[in-house]
Amino acid sequence: MSEIGATEMLSESLGSFVLVKLKGGREVRGLMKSFDQHLNLVLDEAEELIPDKEPKKLGAIIVRGDNVVIVSPSPR
Amino acid sequence: MSEIGATEMLSESLGSFVLVKLKGGREVRGLMKSFDQHLNLVLDEAEELIPDKEPKKLGAIIVRGDNVVIVSPSPR
Amino acid sequence: MSEIGATEMLSESLGSFVLVKLKGGREVRGLMKSFDQHLNLVLDEAEELIPDKEPKKLGAIIVRGDNVVIVSPSPR
Amino acid sequence: MSEIGATEMLSESLGSFVLVKLKGGREVRGLMKSFDQHLNLVLDEAEELIPDKEPKKLGAIIVRGDNVVIVSPSPR
Amino acid sequence: MSEIGATEMLSESLGSFVLVKLKGGREVRGLMKSFDQHLNLVLDEAEELIPDKEPKKLGAIIVRGDNVVIVSPSPR
Amino acid sequence: MSEIGATEMLSESLGSFVLVKLKGGREVRGLMKSFDQHLNLVLDEAEELIPDKEPKKLGAIIVRGDNVVIVSPSPR
Amino acid sequence: MSEIGATEMLSESLGSFVLVKLKGGREVRGLMKSFDQHLNLVLDEAEELIPDKEPKKLGAIIVRGDNVVIVSPSPR
Repeated sequence: MSEIGATEMLSESLGSFVLVKLKGGREVRGLMKSFDQHLNLVLDEAEELIPDKEPKKLGAIIVRGDNVVIVSPSPR
Repeated sequence: MSEIGATEMLSESLGSFVLVKLKGGREVRGLMKSFDQHLNLVLDEAEELIPDKEPKKLGAIIVRGDNVVIVSPSPR
Repeated sequence: MSEIGATEMLSESLGSFVLVKLKGGREVRGLMKSFDQHLNLVLDEAEELIPDKEPKKLGAIIVRGDNVVIVSPSPR
Repeated sequence: MSEIGATEMLSESLGSFVLVKLKGGREVRGLMKSFDQHLNLVLDEAEELIPDKEPKKLGAIIVRGDNVVIVSPSPR
Repeated sequence: MSEIGATEMLSESLGSFVLVKLKGGREVRGLMKSFDQHLNLVLDEAEELIPDKEPKKLGAIIVRGDNVVIVSPSPR
Repeated sequence: MSEIGATEMLSESLGSFVLVKLKGGREVRGLMKSFDQHLNLVLDEAEELIPDKEPKKLGAIIVRGDNVVIVSPSPR
Repeated sequence: MSEIGATEMLSESLGSFVLVKLKGGREVRGLMKSFDQHLNLVLDEAEELIPDKEPKKLGAIIVRGDNVVIVSPSPR
């Protein structure tokens, strides 16, 4: 089994949809356009996922890295 | 697909309205006048968005970057 | 449209009243006497704004910058 | 008794399932693919453990280290 | 109007009573004996102010600066 | 009375059971295997102590130091 | 009036009982054995003070400095 680091995994996610869980419980989903080593993210076609509601469309967004808990390159 | 970094995206937002989600749930909207690498923002014609209420006008404001969760250059 | 940075905006606010929103929801208003790059502020004739109550007079105060969320040089 | 450091323990967990307790009470479990000195983790086949519910499948995930409270290389 | 910095204001408060508002809502009052650039404070004859109760006497105390929100050199 | 520093006290606890109180109220107990200057800890035979319940066995764990409030080398 | 710094005050407290107020509301009391510049403390004969209950004996403890709000060398 080869080791896959966070940077490689984020690089492979460029151009794909990712799910991002944020501190405080918020979740957003979007097309990954860029990231840096602090996990600052630029997402396009982003939407906020709200339990038991329709997702709220946000368009292009910047997520400040220190709010990120989990990034998942395989959202459903 | 070209990579668009956070700085490029913020630069393109200068002079346009942005939506800013803050820690603790607050949201403000305003005309982006400047930003720095910590995501400190200067917004003009800013207003705080309060659920189920009229937005509260704040005028020109400085937002301290460490409170920022999401910046969206495409508010509605 | 010219870019106005946070420092310029704070400098222009010296000697004028500012509204300061703090983490945790507190708000204070006062005459800006000085500031530094961490957004530590010295305010004179300060008062704490308490919803549905009279403002509470605090006199001269120092606000530790890491508690600041928003500084608005145009309070009402 | 020999001293076993955190790095050695994490290295031995590469390729095995780990349980990760996060700030705010969330728990995730997954196959450890990589880690760094900040405890940033890459997990595969990850799932979020939700009390009194079925685990929620997340697939491959990146966990930002500053959210980690406990890593346990011996989940059940 | 002359600019008065935080350090000057704290220096002038040495030997006088100050009111200190802390994160989480606690408030203490005491005679300022010393301070440093992190806003670590040594107060003598300190007491904790508790809403709708008698102040609780604490004697000499050290306040860790990162808990400080507001220092007011003009308590009542 | 001789001064005993934190490092000496932690060194003496290697191979013994310690009680660790964490931010947010969690408590774990385990056999101390290693520690570093950030108070990152490796514990073996660890268990989480839950009020009014049986302790939950965790096996070997890594505790991220920034979550630690109190380490007590003399648990009961 | 002479200035008494935090370090001098802590040094004078070595070998005496101190009261320590922690973030989140916890309070511990113990015999000060050592401290460092981060306010990491080693206390002996420590006990946790719980409102309306008997103090809980903890024995020797290490307190991580970033949890400390107030240290009072004059507990009652």
